[in-house]
Parts: sequence; structure tokens; C-alpha cells
Amino acid sequence: MDLTTIKDPTFLKNLSVHELQQLSADIRQFLIEVTSRTGGHIGPNLGVVELTIALHKIFDSPKDKFIWDVGHQAYVHKILTGRTKQFDTLKKYKGLSGFPKMAESEHDVWETGHSSTSLSAAMGMAIARDMKQTGEYIIPIIGDGAITGGMALEALNHIGHEKKDMIVILNDNEMSIAPNVGALHNILGRLRTAGKYHWVKDELEYILRKIPAVGGKLADAAEKIKDSLKYLLVSGVFFEELGYTYLGPVDGHNFDDLFENLQYAKKMKGPVLVHVLTKKGKGYHPAESDRLGTWHGPGPYKIESGDFIKPVSSPPAWSKVVSETVRKMARTDDRIVAITPAMIPGSKLEGFGQEFPDRLFDVGIAEQHATTMAAGLATQGMKPFLAIYSTFLQRGYDQVVHDVCRQNLNVFFGIDRSGLVGADGETHHGVFDISFLRHVPNLVLMMPKDENEGQHMVYSALEYDAGPIAVRYPRGNGLGVPMDEELKAIPIGTWEVLKEGTDYAILTFGTTIPMALEAAQKLGEIGISVKVVNARFIKPLDESMIVKLLDDAMPILTIEEATLAGGFGSSILEYAHDHGYHEAKIDRMGIPDRFIEHGSVNELFEEIGLTVETAVLKIQAMHLKKQQRA
Amino acid sequence: MDLTTIKDPTFLKNLSVHELQQLSADIRQFLIEVTSRTGGHIGPNLGVVELTIALHKIFDSPKDKFIWDVGHQAYVHKILTGRTKQFDTLKKYKGLSGFPKMAESEHDVWETGHSSTSLSAAMGMAIARDMKQTGEYIIPIIGDGAITGGMALEALNHIGHEKKDMIVILNDNEMSIAPNVGALHNILGRLRTAGKYHWVKDELEYILRKIPAVGGKLADAAEKIKDSLKYLLVSGVFFEELGYTYLGPVDGHNFDDLFENLQYAKKMKGPVLVHVLTKKGKGYHPAESDRLGTWHGPGPYKIESGDFIKPVSSPPAWSKVVSETVRKMARTDDRIVAITPAMIPGSKLEGFGQEFPDRLFDVGIAEQHATTMAAGLATQGMKPFLAIYSTFLQRGYDQVVHDVCRQNLNVFFGIDRSGLVGADGETHHGVFDISFLRHVPNLVLMMPKDENEGQHMVYSALEYDAGPIAVRYPRGNGLGVPMDEELKAIPIGTWEVLKEGTDYAILTFGTTIPMALEAAQKLGEIGISVKVVNARFIKPLDESMIVKLLDDAMPILTIEEATLAGGFGSSILEYAHDHGYHEAKIDRMGIPDRFIEHGSVNELFEEIGLTVETAVLKIQAMHLKKQQRA
Repeated sequence: MDLTTIKDPTFLKNLSVHELQQLSADIRQFLIEVTSRTGGHIGPNLGVVELTIALHKIFDSPKDKFIWDVGHQAYVHKILTGRTKQFDTLKKYKGLSGFPKMAESEHDVWETGHSSTSLSAAMGMAIARDMKQTGEYIIPIIGDGAITGGMALEALNHIGHEKKDMIVILNDNEMSIAPNVGALHNILGRLRTAGKYHWVKDELEYILRKIPAVGGKLADAAEKIKDSLKYLLVSGVFFEELGYTYLGPVDGHNFDDLFENLQYAKKMKGPVLVHVLTKKGKGYHPAESDRLGTWHGPGPYKIESGDFIKPVSSPPAWSKVVSETVRKMARTDDRIVAITPAMIPGSKLEGFGQEFPDRLFDVGIAEQHATTMAAGLATQGMKPFLAIYSTFLQRGYDQVVHDVCRQNLNVFFGIDRSGLVGADGETHHGVFDISFLRHVPNLVLMMPKDENEGQHMVYSALEYDAGPIAVRYPRGNGLGVPMDEELKAIPIGTWEVLKEGTDYAILTFGTTIPMALEAAQKLGEIGISVKVVNARFIKPLDESMIVKLLDDAMPILTIEEATLAGGFGSSILEYAHDHGYHEAKIDRMGIPDRFIEHGSVNELFEEIGLTVETAVLKIQAMHLKKQQRA
Repeated sequence: MDLTTIKDPTFLKNLSVHELQQLSADIRQFLIEVTSRTGGHIGPNLGVVELTIALHKIFDSPKDKFIWDVGHQAYVHKILTGRTKQFDTLKKYKGLSGFPKMAESEHDVWETGHSSTSLSAAMGMAIARDMKQTGEYIIPIIGDGAITGGMALEALNHIGHEKKDMIVILNDNEMSIAPNVGALHNILGRLRTAGKYHWVKDELEYILRKIPAVGGKLADAAEKIKDSLKYLLVSGVFFEELGYTYLGPVDGHNFDDLFENLQYAKKMKGPVLVHVLTKKGKGYHPAESDRLGTWHGPGPYKIESGDFIKPVSSPPAWSKVVSETVRKMARTDDRIVAITPAMIPGSKLEGFGQEFPDRLFDVGIAEQHATTMAAGLATQGMKPFLAIYSTFLQRGYDQVVHDVCRQNLNVFFGIDRSGLVGADGETHHGVFDISFLRHVPNLVLMMPKDENEGQHMVYSALEYDAGPIAVRYPRGNGLGVPMDEELKAIPIGTWEVLKEGTDYAILTFGTTIPMALEAAQKLGEIGISVKVVNARFIKPLDESMIVKLLDDAMPILTIEEATLAGGFGSSILEYAHDHGYHEAKIDRMGIPDRFIEHGSVNELFEEIGLTVETAVLKIQAMHLKKQQRA
């Protein structure tokens, strides 16, 4: 059918299974066609086509509430709720978000991007429903990777205790972002094959009933056997123990099976867990046979071949530069181990893992545990490298403070995807890290200007043994600069002058250095001499350099791809005023005090004025004032 | 015995059970005697006397590593490792810490204060041990409340998966800080009575062996029954499912039972969970019969009567002012619900809970879930009040950013124990909250000058419907000011002039206001006129007032009981420079960039120079400079 004619999901109520199967095929074709051009989370969405259709057929959105965990699997939901035409703008500036968005549709009742929040949100909604007696169904849909996140486990526990009516859909696709880990996954593995045991239970109950009771004790015990058989054979033992009615496993690509179980779930009281088996990438061979997670959320690709469309030769990814440098050092330093919260492909740790399989720990989606486990390793003289995205390190903030920095332990944080990340948008931008880390005592925080300096910073971090140390680096690729053969240590707290100048100084680091250099160039052309400093240590500051600038009464512009409040520029203001430089002329550029939506990084830079032009204007304004004062 | 003669735990190896029982009695008497004078975590420590002795007898600390979760139950461990004499300084300035401290003893291998970190730390240590092949035992000791924390569940999952050798002691005292909640607790409840079922298992196995096999199927099934019986009857199903060998339940006050199980655990490979039943307050009647958690960590008390020694009449606790105001408003506003992560007594929510049992949610030690559940409630038009200690809100930082503030939801955070908390020390000081919240878009953050303004702030927060809003307030009691009958709204972003002045302005809020007023008084006496402003909105700032100050070129001193980096003072610096006031004289007072140890708040203020004298000196220094310029 023509998917652009869909206004809302009510049309599904009248379709036959055959028609729904045809619809599924049409949706798959559409998704493949669109994402081959735009990129996007094709794997997860192909996996939930039938499940999403079944949910919209059996329940009544928006009265009934679907809460998509992580949210990257909501494309089919978006199609069924009238957003097909907008898919050409998927993840583009001002275009359709890759995640649920309340502003897009009344059918999106919860926004997300980080994992494992759906159950807590659903619990809040269920409490509200029961207090307001509105009686709708509340249906969180959570994957087998996300359910191992600590906050999801906290919520599972609480929901089971409170016995709230709720239908939790466990979307078990046997592979979360990376091959999943953890004992909980093993349990799910056992459940997957549990369907086979139904007959055993029935037969055994029959036999047991024939055994004569022995002084009443056996009758009692037989009742327990029955219960325990249910637990073990029909499985769901884990969830049943937590207070849920367990339904499944359900074939997530079979409408009859889905309808039967969802209808049954509708009739139950209390929390129900419907265990649905789906296949990531279902219906598109290259994605279906993916075992590494490369089809989780790729860029554009060729439909026929499944080849990714990439620039012919691009500089190495930042993640790869960092992970490969750690790998190189691990060859001669036995103390180095690497930890990732379910991000082996994203953090480019495959090579490290191949070479040191016993020294790479994928802890699953568990940022809190990952951070404190690193602290535990460090207490024993090890050198843990925690590779973690900036936005996900937010989950480990307390552990950074209380476990790592308070005990001043030698943990090396590789903070990936720092700054604006582009298409994934406001849930994923790594713009808060400087503000949430700079005030934590004992932590050293740096950012390299290019991948060559990046490798030396990794070396410096792993050689450093006076406490926690972090390198932040952006999403995407390096600049393509030549790489030194030999790694060298950068003295802690030292900046570097990239361009001399006599009138003004720009202090900046990382991604905004080219912007500063270009602004200095333009200002030079109109007779204003600007010094550009690579302020590669965000903390501690290069005090000798900053004192020199302040003593020279050199006006300073700071530029950072990070939130302004409490950021690097603030630390310069603090330093100046704390040391009596109350006349210092300091101006700041960075991310303003609001959440930034999705779009290309350059579009977002334009939107917030983080540009060469702004830098030029700000220094010109300072210059005008200076002339007025003179 | 004379406990002060203990140098290390080796003497335990030669003691008989009878002698150990006598030692237990001596330790209990000592603990009661000491804490009756000093205050301290008497309940938890009386509960682990035999367990701690047994651990030190069976294992060899410090080679073998005990990791005390939360850490407030380590008093017995401190006695057995030679620190008895220091107990007179317990929790006092420069005295013995109430938590494990590496600097105190080589037997303290992990520092903590926050819950649920022990398993992650132990996992890190176990990985290090296996890489270094040192072969020691690693023994985290975790309570039944702490184990429901998300990060503990993440770690349980990972440990089970990796099958590391580790002996987890589950110290199940039937009552964590508050009466425990959650489905996991229900499971533990079932385990507690499971000892009774041993005989059923044996008898049933005997009978089952007599049943003739039916086509091979029953043999297969019988094997499963055996397994399932083990799961259900000997219990431990939850932990066994996660990959642990389950031992217990063990009587935590019976040395023979403890020795047998710990010896057995020593011989096992892979992770072992030893489920130990203990009684909080064991051996001291008032603490033993406590059901409300008042003996968890009380102040000084009279041993004979169990009466707490308190000032005859003290102003109401801050927690109580806030919770009771919420309660009052809940009477006329059905949208209000209260949420606490296991802190009903600490947050003084008993009254609210008695009046609105269906509107109070104790989610257990689960700050992440608590925060996002509040967000879920807010999406449905409810008005959730999350009562949470400042230091524990660190655990919910990502949820504050990603779930509450990004979606701009009407969640009211009551941030308790903000600022220095005194005796609990560096793990518990609530000094980072301004720095980790100020940069989060959409959040309103305030702090009252006294409990009367506090109740109006609660009113303002619950009446506010434009997004998230937080009130931070200190540990301890209010000032004893008269309370208005009628609640009123304080306009968002408005400050209040407490004392007029013409030469300098002090901007401060909350606990440091008396300090500012006293400094202003002293400066007035030497002819310097100081204005004192109650900057009760930390965010947003009162722009009209600050612009007036800056336009008047009034030098400003900011004072805050919070970390300086990225704090309130920084926001004044940012505002001034962002708005072109580059000549502004701004000086700051607050918490320096290091972790602050335990002691009375006044002693700590002296140590860090957060005093009237410093304020006077800073303004005098500004004054001198001004005179020099003139």
C-alpha cells in the first residue's frame, strides 16, 4: 500500500493477517530504501515490523501508551502514526528525529535516546493512571540488552513489588548493540529454547497425580513441583520470581502468535512480561546476517550489495586512534585492561579484543558498574582504560566522583563522542562533560587538537600514575595528519601556542581550533594580531601561560564545543578573578544553555553561532571598546 | 578481653567458639558504650559482630580482601584490626572515620559511603587478582537493601557471567535503612524460611527414584525436577539463575553455622553467594526492637533507657519542614505524590505516608529509577516530589539531564543534606549539586534563607508548572524562625536585599547568610558599607538586581556552601563577562577543589576558610585596592 496515505493506526483494525503481512513487506521495502539514502537504525527497525503493527492493532494509541526503550526502533511506529512523508528528512536538521519526539506526534508519549529508561517511565505513568483512574494500557518495549541496565533492573524490581498493571514487551533479538553479555542474557538464552518443554510438563503432571500421597507431605511437595516445573520448563523463572506473569516465548514475526499473546496479556491483572523473539535486520539479508552490529545504525549503503557508501579514503576514526594506541601500549604493559559498556564496535575495540581477549571486558549496558569496576582494578595497581561515550558517562557521574576521583585512582577515561554528535541529536550530544567533570577534585581532563596529539595523550594518560585522567575526543574521524612513530608524554597542564599574536588571545582546544585559526587569520588581515593557544589541558590549566596573558593584559576569547555554564571558559574567569585580575577582558564562546536538536554539526554550529564569524565579531567588539577606552 | 590490646586479627585463629562468644559480648558492650557518647551506626554494627569475627577467623586479611558495602558496618572490623583506642574520636574532626579508610589501615582496601558499589569493586579486584595470579579471596559484604541498587544488580549480572571466584556475603538483616521494598526483597523473604524444606527435597528424590521411567522422558524430566526442587526448595533460585552457587541461609549469630558455610565457600570455584541472616541492633534491646530505622545511625543516647540525648527544644528539621509542607499541599492538590529512595525516616516522610499511603513511593535504594519514575509521573500531569539527599542525587544525574530536564517536566526535587554534612564526611557532603545542576538547561534551582522561606519555596515549586524545579536545603534543623500560616509563591528568579549598603555587595544564600550579615556588620563598624543579598535563586539569577549592581560598579563577593568550580559564584562571573562588564570586581568564597573530610561543620568551615573573617578580609583587600586605584 501507499504508506504516505497512513494518517493514524486505526486502519489496522480491519486488515487481515494476509494484508498485514503485505503491509510488513511494504514497510520493510520503504525502510530499506529510505535508510540506504539517509542512514539510520535499519537493523533494529526491520526487527520490529510485525511487533509494532501487532501492538498498534491490539492496543489503541495514543490512549494506550507505547514507551520505546532507547527509541531508535520507533521508525515503524512513526510510519503507522502518519509520518511517512517526513522520512526523507530522517535525522536531518529540522527534519524527522531518529527517536520518539512528543512534538512530532501525540503517539510519542516518552522521549529517549539513552537505554533502560522505559520501565521507570512506565511505572510513573501507571501510578498516574491508577490515581486518575483512566484505565489505559501502558506498554514499555525494551530490548534484551537494555533490560540489563541497572536502572531497568531497579524498575523491574519495583514494578514487580507494586504489582501495577503493565505489559512489558521484552524484545529479544539475541543481539543488542554488540553481542550481549551478562548472566541475564544466559537466562534469556535458556528461555529461547524453552518452548520445547511444554509437553514434558503436561506428561509429568499426569504421572505425579498417580503417585499416592505419603502422609500428606507429598501432596504438598507435588504442588511445589508443579510450580517449579512451571518455573523451569515454561521458563520465565527470573521474571516470575520478580512478580510478573510471563508469556512466551512469542515468535515476533508471526502475527497469529503475537495477537494471541497480546490479547491474553490484555486480560491479565498485574505486571505481565511478554517475551518476543525477533530478528534484527529481518528481511534484508546483509543486515540479517550481521553478527558484529555494523547494521545497527549505519550510514547510507547500496541496497543490492549491502556495501556502505563511504568517502573513498578518510582519516582514521577518533575511537580507533585511541583504542589502537591503548592496544599498542598493552603489548608492553601488562597492567592495561579495557572496559566498554556494550560498545565494542562503536569504540573500535575489536582489534584490542582480538589481541587481548582476556583483557577486554564488555560489561553490557552498565555504565555505573563499568566505572566502579575500573576503580576496583586501579586499587590493585592495574591501568584500566574505560572507553565510554560522553553522553553515557553521565550515567557514571556518581561513580566518577565517589569511587574513582575521591579515592584518587589511576583510571583512564576515553571520553568518546564529546561535543555535538550531529544526527542523533539532543539525547546524544556530549556537551555537558566539561561541566560535570571540571568540578570533580583530582581529575585531569584533556582534549587533543588532532589524532597525532591524541595518541600522545593516550600515552600520557596511561603513563600517568597520580590519579584519574581523561581524554575527550569527538565523534567521527581525525584530520588526516601524519602520525608519529614514537609515542611521547605531554607534560600535565601544559598548553601550546599554535600562532603567535600580540593584541588578543584565543584559548581553545580540540575541534574548535581550526575555527580559531581561521578567525585569527581574518583578523590579521584587518590588522588585529591574535594569538591562538591550544589549551589542551582543560584541567589543570597552564597557569604559567595564563598568568603571562593576564599580566600582559591580553584580552582573551575562549572557544569550546561544550556547554558554557561551568565550562572551560568559566574556569578562565574563575582563575582570573581568584588571582586578582579583576580587569581581565574575557569573552566566551560555546554551547548555550538549552538542549540542541539534531542536524549536521556544521548546521548546529551555525544555529548557535559557534562560528568563525562570531569569533571575528567578538574580537572586533573588544577591539572597538579598547579603542574607545584609549 | 581488653579490646585495646588487639593489634591485628591473627589472635582470632586460636580462640574457641566459647571465647569468640565472649569476645562478641565484649565488642557489643564496647560499641554500645562508645556510640552512646559519640553517636554512630550502632544498629548495623551490632548486627555483624559474629559475622565480622567469623570472616577474620576464616580468611586472612589484608591478603584476602573484605569490601564493606556502604561501609557504615565496619566498626567491628576496625576493632579487630587494631583501632579500638581511636573510637573516642569516632566521626570527629581528624578522628576515626565512620567508614572504611585506606589511610587508617591496610585492612581497609576499598572506601565507600554510598551504597551498592562493593560488587563492582570486587569484580575489578578479582580481574586484577587473576591477571596477577595472586590467588587471594575477595569477599564483598552487601546488605539486602544495597543489593537492589541498580549498579549492584549490574555487577551481580556481570560477575555471574564471568564466573570469577568471589565470595559474596549477603548480609540480610530484614531491614535496610528503612523497611525494605521491592520484589527482590520478597524473594529474600521466601529464602528466609526455606531451611524448612530440606527434608522435603530428600524425601521426594527418594520417591521419584522409584517411579519407573516412561519411554526415557521421565528420567529426563526427573533430572529437571531435581534441579527445580533445588531451586525452589533449597531456594537461591534467583542467584543460581544468575550463575552463583548459593549457600544458606546461615544464622549470622551462630559461629558454627558461619564457619561451616564460609569454609565450604572457600573450597568452591566461581562466584558463591553466602546468604547470612543477621539482626540489626542484636544484643541491645532498644535497637533490636527498632522497626523504623531510628537506631540505624542515631546521635548519643542513654544506655539504660535507650532515650536519645537531644537538645531540649530544637527548631524543626529541614527535612520535616519540606515534607510537611508538601503534605499540607497534597491535601488540596491530588496531583502531588512523594518519592523516596529508601529514606522515609531521613526525609521525614512518615507523616506524609500516614496521611497518603497510596501517594508515597519508597522505591528502595534506586536513585536512577526514582528520578525517571518522577519524570514518567510528570508526563501525565502529576506533581512528583522527589525527596533525595544531594550526595545521592549524583546517582541520578543522567536521569535529571536526559529524562527530566530535556523533556522539561514538572518534577520537584527536594535536595536534602546540601552543603557540608559534618560527621559522615567526604562521601556524604552535598557540595557538588550546584556545579552538576547549574549547567542543565530548564532547571530552576533555589535555596532558602530559613525554614519560613523554605516552606514558601516548596509552595512555589509545587505551584510552578513550566518545568523542573529544585530546592536545596542543609542537613539538620532550621533557625527557629516564626512560620507564616499562609503559603505564598516567591516569584521565580527574584533575590531579596537583606541589608542595604553602598560600597560592596555580598551575594549569598542559605546557610552562609548569617556569615555574610556578620561580616557586613563588622565591616560597617570600620566604615565600609556592605549590602547583603539573599540570592535565593541560584538559577535563574535575578538579572535586574545583578545588572543594577554591575551598573553601579559595586564590587561583589559571592559566598556559597558548595564547590567553587562551576558554582554560583562562577555564574556571576559568567553573567558579568557575557554582558560586557569586564571591569567587574567579583570575588568568591566556597568549597575548594578537593574532597573535604569529616568533622563538625564549623570545624570544616574553619579548615577551608569559609568564615566571617575571610569575608571581612576579602572585602578589606578589595577596599585597599580601590583606595590604591583612587
